Amino acid sequence: MKHVLSVLADNNSGVLLRVCGLFSRRGYSISSINAAQTEDPHISRMTIVVDCDNDTLQQIEQQLLKLVDIREVIDLLPDKRVCRDHIMVRVGNSENSISSLIQIANLFMAKIIDVSSDSLILELTGRVTEIDNFVRLLKPYGIRKLVRTGISALERW
Amino acid sequence: MKHVLSVLADNNSGVLLRVCGLFSRRGYSISSINAAQTEDPHISRMTIVVDCDNDTLQQIEQQLLKLVDIREVIDLLPDKRVCRDHIMVRVGNSENSISSLIQIANLFMAKIIDVSSDSLILELTGRVTEIDNFVRLLKPYGIRKLVRTGISALERW
Repeated sequence: MKHVLSVLADNNSGVLLRVCGLFSRRGYSISSINAAQTEDPHISRMTIVVDCDNDTLQQIEQQLLKLVDIREVIDLLPDKRVCRDHIMVRVGNSENSISSLIQIANLFMAKIIDVSSDSLILELTGRVTEIDNFVRLLKPYGIRKLVRTGISALERW
Repeated sequence: MKHVLSVLADNNSGVLLRVCGLFSRRGYSISSINAAQTEDPHISRMTIVVDCDNDTLQQIEQQLLKLVDIREVIDLLPDKRVCRDHIMVRVGNSENSISSLIQIANLFMAKIIDVSSDSLILELTGRVTEIDNFVRLLKPYGIRKLVRTGISALERW
């Protein structure tokens, strides 16, 4: 089962390495991660997506909390989280495809954030399934490069 | 100087650990990172922001390319990159503050993606300085929780 962990950590040197090491030592791959500072530049929040069973997750949570840099670990449950993903995709742009690409962008309310003579960068923020469908629809037009942030999440109150 | 690296890697177990280890061993902290799969589920793209001089960056790039999992490393130069950041912020919401919060949201074209009896989650995707200014304007209203993806970037063509 995919779990979404929200981890608050002090910005000490090597904290990311220690967190990644914890998952790696147990043989669990991180599906996606993003980590950046909060409103306090000395503290970062990470959103980590990992595929593992509940028992393992509990162990990982306990181990994470033993690290001195870690202030908070929350397992964001499916009905208690607001999850977003962000994507930028460069697609080829020809006379034949441009109107279809604009139609797809409008359909998803995506933004066109860069235009060159033969390609566009489209940007979309949304739910994960929305981003997946966006990629599926763009594939036939030739994806040249793509970058996703992975899930970023907060608790729903 | 802040550098933005775009790294393409095979989704092998421990690849993130090896990448983080490279920075950590040289004593360079990663300011922000995001890593998620591309259109090919076996391959991920990471965007790493690191503060170091050009010589060190060159060494890091060479060391990264020696790792078997790494397919591509690009130092995205300031005038050759499209950078975006994404934020979700939960702020307190009272009778006195709600109209100001909506005004700030409209000013930045931010979305309100969750509403509870005493708080809101606002979401914004944009340039880093835009996100920084958004946080600055929201601070007086009481930031309860905040999550940023950190910079996600592609080359500008």
